[in-house]
Formats: sequence, structure tokens, C-alpha cells
Amino acid sequence: MSELGEFELIARYFKRPERALGAGVALGVGDDCALLQPSPGMQLAVSSDMLVSGRHFFADVDPRTLGHKALAVNLSDLAACGAQPLGFTLALALPEANADWLAAFSQGLFALADLHGCTLVGGDTTRGPLNICITVFGEVPPGQALLRSGAQAGDDIYVSGTLGDAALALLALQGKVDLPPDLLAQTRQHLEAPTPRVALGMALRGVATAAADVSDGLLGDLGHILQQSGKGAIVHAEIAIKLIATYADGTGAAGPFGLKVSAPTLLQCVLAGGDDYELVFTAAPAQRDAVQRASDTAGVPVTRIGSVTTDAGLTLLDANGVAVPSTVFSSFDHFAP
Amino acid sequence: MSELGEFELIARYFKRPERALGAGVALGVGDDCALLQPSPGMQLAVSSDMLVSGRHFFADVDPRTLGHKALAVNLSDLAACGAQPLGFTLALALPEANADWLAAFSQGLFALADLHGCTLVGGDTTRGPLNICITVFGEVPPGQALLRSGAQAGDDIYVSGTLGDAALALLALQGKVDLPPDLLAQTRQHLEAPTPRVALGMALRGVATAAADVSDGLLGDLGHILQQSGKGAIVHAEIAIKLIATYADGTGAAGPFGLKVSAPTLLQCVLAGGDDYELVFTAAPAQRDAVQRASDTAGVPVTRIGSVTTDAGLTLLDANGVAVPSTVFSSFDHFAP
Repeated sequence: MSELGEFELIARYFKRPERALGAGVALGVGDDCALLQPSPGMQLAVSSDMLVSGRHFFADVDPRTLGHKALAVNLSDLAACGAQPLGFTLALALPEANADWLAAFSQGLFALADLHGCTLVGGDTTRGPLNICITVFGEVPPGQALLRSGAQAGDDIYVSGTLGDAALALLALQGKVDLPPDLLAQTRQHLEAPTPRVALGMALRGVATAAADVSDGLLGDLGHILQQSGKGAIVHAEIAIKLIATYADGTGAAGPFGLKVSAPTLLQCVLAGGDDYELVFTAAPAQRDAVQRASDTAGVPVTRIGSVTTDAGLTLLDANGVAVPSTVFSSFDHFAP
Repeated sequence: MSELGEFELIARYFKRPERALGAGVALGVGDDCALLQPSPGMQLAVSSDMLVSGRHFFADVDPRTLGHKALAVNLSDLAACGAQPLGFTLALALPEANADWLAAFSQGLFALADLHGCTLVGGDTTRGPLNICITVFGEVPPGQALLRSGAQAGDDIYVSGTLGDAALALLALQGKVDLPPDLLAQTRQHLEAPTPRVALGMALRGVATAAADVSDGLLGDLGHILQQSGKGAIVHAEIAIKLIATYADGTGAAGPFGLKVSAPTLLQCVLAGGDDYELVFTAAPAQRDAVQRASDTAGVPVTRIGSVTTDAGLTLLDANGVAVPSTVFSSFDHFAP
């Protein structure tokens, strides 16, 4: 562990003079501002997420996965919008300038950034309680961004990938459920290194009527779509519960994982767990083939879990078509009393 | 003091449905991303600054001035680039959702934002040690951004407004110097409510060869210009010391303020104090009239303090033309050992 100066820190870990600037970036790190040059006529999609130690991650988390996750949660917002990533700024408060930590953090960050052609264009570093704030920029043709407000009555509701594993890992790490080591490792991957669905979001331009990323929990994030669209929804719990990746691995039936984790707990993880960074989106039934093609293009499975209704409110149905109280599956709220 | 939920907090203090979206903003707060639509052909200038409690401000600072300052330091980066403000994102970590604090903070923030037509387009709120991260967006015609790298040998060096008052206030608040109450109030205004020089930055497009904002201290920030331009400079200390607003108020001569603050301390405040958020810039001597016109247009005085040299290094000269050691005026470094 060694202490570095602020400018040396930036130069050593966050300036990459050897790399050409990415598409859409005219000036990168090192001036008062970065300069972006979006493609002619394109709109710029912008999102910020702040990750706080002890709140969004454990203080002793592997800094490489933290670097990955800090960018992933932001790219996930671009994905939910159907935007192509261009660049990002990184503001970082650190208790100390630890070289090993910074090396691993920046490696995790840049590995994901490079995968998406997303250039670090600027930011800020300061001393303080560990806090990572990333603002990400992408571009999307005018009128083609996926908004939360476009869901229509009768639309199908889909979810990408799997849901609930991140929440299950968190419960295990908190000692609230007991998972075998291999299952813990598997679910922990979802918690610590989520995969933003950028390609799927872009493939859903012109296909999905509305989209959001699942960061606070499925029902909460779907709720945002419904609220902003002025609609309601029916969601099938028996389909949703199978969205948890660890459900389908054959280790359990009536109670997965040899009954160590109860079905209600699994359903809670799936419906309200959060930290999934999958996409929840709506599309007209006439677009089912197009949705499948988007799924194939992106290489990400999607599951139809319900449909949009004219009446407001969200109805969760069990396998027998009986309504399950859904209000117990509360979404995550950082300031909930 | 009452506790609010996260979404209520955003809706109450940071969503402004009554206002039309500003120029260049197609979609504001409330979706996964905001959508910016820069004017055709314009480049987007982007900058992020993070303010940490106890580091950048006192924990008990008036939240209204804090809201102002958090945006001001970001607008100052746009000013240094010559960019016109469009919008900003706000990520906020709060120990608690205190309604009074949030009301005052958002009032200070929006008062300055409205002054510059700069729209809050999105962001994030979370619980955590108080931390404010703003990313600001502006637009500038391609090729007209003021960069740090353009200074030419023979250029004049200018500073806008006054320098050192913020640092003097900080010394007084830390009990290191003694200021009369009225002088403390005056200097404290510079520390807590700096004025970003946005109009001046825009007026200097095509006139200044290089610019930076003075956030870490004059010599440090001028040093960035010189380093990135591959040049050196001569700076006149006897001109610089008069840049401190409280110097010229007639309260002292040999030692201003009735000898309570020594000249070396004042010079330290001016040259290395930081937190000034003025502009330091360079321009060819042939542009002196144009610089004056820019100053008049913006209504901000500028002072010529030296000139750019071919030889690297920064020479500080006293009134007799004798070099003063300038290395003692170290710039602020958040990670200095």
C-alpha cells in the first residue's frame, strides 16, 4: 500500500494515453471539460448512479468486481433506454489512495468499458468515505429511445435473463439463508458482476413500447412503467419464480436447494430483490417474433411474464389464477423509514 | 425534521413539472436516462465534480449556499471551456432525508441553475455520508472550446475577478487568521457562494488561446495550462497580491486589515488558495482590446498578471523584478501525503 498524489493517481490508473478516443469523444481526460461529438442528429442519453460503501456493496468487496459493477449499473440505464454507450465520467471519493485497490478497481472498470466501447472522458477524485459516482452517455436516434411511459393495454410484459439471484446471494452473505458454497458463488456473481443488457436494449428499439432496468426489484421497476404509462398489469407468479437462475439447476423441486430456501423467499428475491440489472419491457403481442429476434440478436433469453391492463394496479396471479397479495413484495427504497 | 421516501424526496425537491424543459433537453427527470438534444453540429462539454462533507465544505454549512456551490463549481468548468450550460445530473448521498435541509439545498441549487438556463435532467439519491456529485453538460461550437493546451509563447496571462478571498475565509474559519466580522462575511461569500464565470468563458471563445478555472489555486491551475501547452510563464507577484478583493478595500496598506494578516499569507491565499472559481487564461497581446470587450460583455473585470514564455517553469517576480520562490505556493492536492 502506498499513498499517491491526486494527479499521479489519475495519470496512473485513469488516463489511457495509449488508446485512441472512442467514437463520439472529441476530447477525453485532462482538461476542464471533456468534449463529446454525438453522431449527427442523435440524441444523447445520460444517466448517473452513485454507489456508497456499506450500502451498495460491502467495504471489503473485490475492487475489480466493484469497478465492473459501478459501470455496469450505469450501462444498464443506457440499455433500458436503447442507447449505444459512448463514454462516462467517474467521480471517486477514497479514504486513501491505495495503489493495489486502484489497480484492481480500474482494471474491472476498463474491462467492461472496453467491451462496450465506452470511453472514460473525465471525472474527479477526492478523499472521503468510499463513494463512486458514474455518469454515462450514450446515443440513440430521436424518437427511438425506450421510455417508461409507452406501455399499451394488451402489451405483453417480458423480463430478460434471470432475476433474484443477486438478492439471494445478499441474503446468504447476511446469514439469513444458507446456500451451498457452489450456489453461493453462482448467485454472488449476479450480485457483484451483473451484465448490463446493452445489446438487447438496442435490439428492442422500435419493438418494445416501454422498458426499464430492474435495479430496485421487478415489481417496483415494472410499477414505474405502469405508473408512467397510466396502466396496470397482470403478472404470473409461477412463471416469475422460475426466473431465478438457481431454481432451474435441478437441486430442488418443491423447495429448491433441498428445501433450504423457501418458495416465498425465492419469490421475494425474484419480485422485489433488486440488483438484477435485467430489463423489464413491454411489447405488443404482434411483436412476439420481433422480440424473439431481438433476444436472439443479443444472445439474451427473455421470458413473457404477464400483460398490461387498462385498469391501474398490479395483480399477481398464482398457478391457479388466484391473486396473490403483491404489496408484500416491496421495492427497495434507500430512504424508507 | 421528517423522514421521506426516496421517490417522494425526488418528486418533492428535485422534480419541477411546472417548468418547461430547457434548451437542448428532450427528456428530463424520471426515466432510466435523460435525453439531450444538442444544437446541430455542436459539441457537448461535460464535467463532473464531487463535494464531500468535511473536505469541501463544513458539515454545518448553510444548505442553500451548498446547493449553490455544488453547481457553481461545475458551471465553472463549463466556463473554463467556453461552453453554454444546458443541463446537469445530481447524485446525492444523504445521512438522512431531512426536509428542511433538502428544501434549502434545492432552492440554492435551482436559483443558480435557473440563472444559467441549466436544467436538472436526472440523477440518483441514496443514503450515505453526505456527498454531492454533479455532472454538467454544455455546448460549444466544434473547434471553439477553450482548452488548456493552446497557450503560445508571448501570450498575456489574465485572471478574472478576485483571488484569495475564499482561502482567507477558510483560514479565518479555521482560526488561523483573525478577521473583523464584516471582512469575514465578505470573504466567506467568496468561499461559500462563488460565481462561475460562464458569460466570460463564452465571450472569450476565439480570443483566449487557453483557459482553466482556478479551483486548486492560481499557480497550480496556471501550471496545468503551461504543462499542457509545453510552455512556461512569468507572473508578477505585486499585481497578483492586489487580486484579493479585501486588499483593495482600504482597511490596510503595508499589512492589510490593520496588520492582522501578513502579506505573505495574503500572497499564499492569492497564489495557492484555491476555491476561487475565477478563470485564468492566455491571449495574444494583439487581442488586448478583444479581451477587454469580452470582460465588458461579461461584466467581469480581468487583470493581466504576466506572460507566457518559451522556457518551461513558472517564475514569480516581485515589484523589483526579483524572482520569488514559487514552489512554496503549493496547489491543493486531495491525496497529498
